[in-house]
Amino acid sequence: MIYLDHNATTPTAPGVVQAMLSVMTDVWANASSQHALGQQARRALAAARATVARVLSCKPSEVIFTSGATEANHLAVLGLHAAVTEPGRRRIVLSAVEHAAHLALARALIGLGVPVDFIGVHADGTLDLDSAARLIGPDVALVSLMAANNETGVLMPVEAMRALAHDAGARMHVDATQVVGKAPFDFARLGVDAVSLSAHKVRGPKGIGALLLRQGTALQPQTQGSQERRRRGGTENLPAIAGFAAALDALGDVAAKAAHTAKLRDALERGLCDALPGVQVFSAAAPRLACTSYLRFGVLPAEVVLHRLEQMGVCASSGSACASGGSEPSHVLAAMGVPRDEALAAVRLSLGESTTAHDIDYLLAALPPLLAPLLASDAVRAA
Amino acid sequence: MIYLDHNATTPTAPGVVQAMLSVMTDVWANASSQHALGQQARRALAAARATVARVLSCKPSEVIFTSGATEANHLAVLGLHAAVTEPGRRRIVLSAVEHAAHLALARALIGLGVPVDFIGVHADGTLDLDSAARLIGPDVALVSLMAANNETGVLMPVEAMRALAHDAGARMHVDATQVVGKAPFDFARLGVDAVSLSAHKVRGPKGIGALLLRQGTALQPQTQGSQERRRRGGTENLPAIAGFAAALDALGDVAAKAAHTAKLRDALERGLCDALPGVQVFSAAAPRLACTSYLRFGVLPAEVVLHRLEQMGVCASSGSACASGGSEPSHVLAAMGVPRDEALAAVRLSLGESTTAHDIDYLLAALPPLLAPLLASDAVRAA
Repeated sequence: MIYLDHNATTPTAPGVVQAMLSVMTDVWANASSQHALGQQARRALAAARATVARVLSCKPSEVIFTSGATEANHLAVLGLHAAVTEPGRRRIVLSAVEHAAHLALARALIGLGVPVDFIGVHADGTLDLDSAARLIGPDVALVSLMAANNETGVLMPVEAMRALAHDAGARMHVDATQVVGKAPFDFARLGVDAVSLSAHKVRGPKGIGALLLRQGTALQPQTQGSQERRRRGGTENLPAIAGFAAALDALGDVAAKAAHTAKLRDALERGLCDALPGVQVFSAAAPRLACTSYLRFGVLPAEVVLHRLEQMGVCASSGSACASGGSEPSHVLAAMGVPRDEALAAVRLSLGESTTAHDIDYLLAALPPLLAPLLASDAVRAA
Repeated sequence: MIYLDHNATTPTAPGVVQAMLSVMTDVWANASSQHALGQQARRALAAARATVARVLSCKPSEVIFTSGATEANHLAVLGLHAAVTEPGRRRIVLSAVEHAAHLALARALIGLGVPVDFIGVHADGTLDLDSAARLIGPDVALVSLMAANNETGVLMPVEAMRALAHDAGARMHVDATQVVGKAPFDFARLGVDAVSLSAHKVRGPKGIGALLLRQGTALQPQTQGSQERRRRGGTENLPAIAGFAAALDALGDVAAKAAHTAKLRDALERGLCDALPGVQVFSAAAPRLACTSYLRFGVLPAEVVLHRLEQMGVCASSGSACASGGSEPSHVLAAMGVPRDEALAAVRLSLGESTTAHDIDYLLAALPPLLAPLLASDAVRAA
């Protein structure tokens, strides 16, 4: 099986499984307990937190462990927003291409009377910075932006947006779920107030993530309890936290890995475009993650392409796993102005650490013969 | 090491570790993905959910997996409360001896203007039902009550409270974290609207729990996303969910186990009371969990007793792990009217599956000689 859906989740690394196994067997006590076993768990927790902080370039006290990126995103938006007490500063600004769960949170807030604005994107999936500049004013409490889009892979202008947000006196939150491990990441340099991330996107365990919160930034906790310096309650999930630390610790030279992945991705896209008519790579010319290829084969419905890929033993997706059960076109492509029939043809191939040149060669050899006859008749239909 | 802090957490069962290991290695895909690996994960998720539902006597669709009991409690209180739209029905009623995180949530809601009332307890730790009957009226949206107290082990009158709540038209939520696995539990028979529980209290993994929500009960999700029938967003934590199911599946004859534990607990309490002067078992005559002994040795500070226990190789606690870093007396004992010096002497010994008669014999042989001299001088001081 060739797995090309790494943006949805990644295979848990053997070293991560080993780290978790060791904690579950030997350090299973409650890290908040005062006795010897509890203290042992507390030390393991501190060590894991220190590793996470080192790899992400933040202070250990700036790490708030959560159950994943979705919770971290909720904590950031709800917790930062509620902590802003300045009169007249209530508005939230986020991009129109955030993760579906993040947009659902925004809609829930609108339902509660919170003013929310969405920044659009250009046809190539890049953020409309002019629109952002117009939308971010002195009444904005929080700007929330993904560092890279999970479908197109397009890198968002985090630094420019941080400048706009901070100049307006607003907090800046970044959802870095798709960027950590795929492009160099440095919390201290980024200069934003909060960053969300998830372990299972970097070969870590599911059920664990973090919100990095700049020291001194006010946050209203959304889950009460004494843990995580009272910023997130609930017994610490030490096995998963240890696995998260092991996964981050194993990242190695992210830039070099990304350069290698980009070569494979480029070969894949070039090969498909050369072999078949009507292939379009979304956001092809935009700065994007090395691992992500979002493309369409004419207007062949994604499910037809995915079915052929499945027959070849290749796992891919039509976009976000979290929305992949639906029949609606991607909201990301809709925001880019992509027509409905083209959006419903979108297939995401996302590469990972285990992807090899051989995988790409196999795909380039096996997929075009399967799709070519369909595309020919498709072209006839479309004409 | 003899571990007598099972109410804080339990050692992860080897079968649970094995179940998680197998999922992490073989079924690591995203359960929301449409491809073959995702479908395999989805089937494993459905199987685990069916096991959880079978053991807890609910429907699979009534299980909402969360990151633990704390999140489940928050989801229950915030989600049920927000879903009540009847005008004039806003008040929340809970007991004064709920878990510290639950009381913190109540205080946060009070801060937001939500009316909240607390039901007191009698000197033996049992709930004041007369007070409950007075407090629960037609303006109550939600009653939230723990099934058993985590410190004293006192069983709460869930059925009587459910009757009061439902007669008043209010929702009834039960925090069963300390009861599942320690006393027979049947969601269908209990008749309440929602129940929280946690895996790590029943030898399952940390970082996973559930809210059981009666079919047809309106709930406003607190974490957006497509998972868990849109009631709790975030990529499913399949390894932990599989471990949770394995832990519940291994519970076996809970009543028989509890009867065995009660014998050990009674022998422990009798032995200590016989061997030392001034031993008081809190809530001794109240109906309580078989596993829990909350007691004091005169007014010897808990930390002194815990230190002696630690020297003997015994891990115990002064109460809830979640509050055990503090120097304040237990809010549970305060609610029972226990004087401050007696409350600061409280030590909790909580037994578990692995506790043996030998452990109890050892404790009864070794602890009294260590404490007797201290208690003698303590008695002198107190006189």
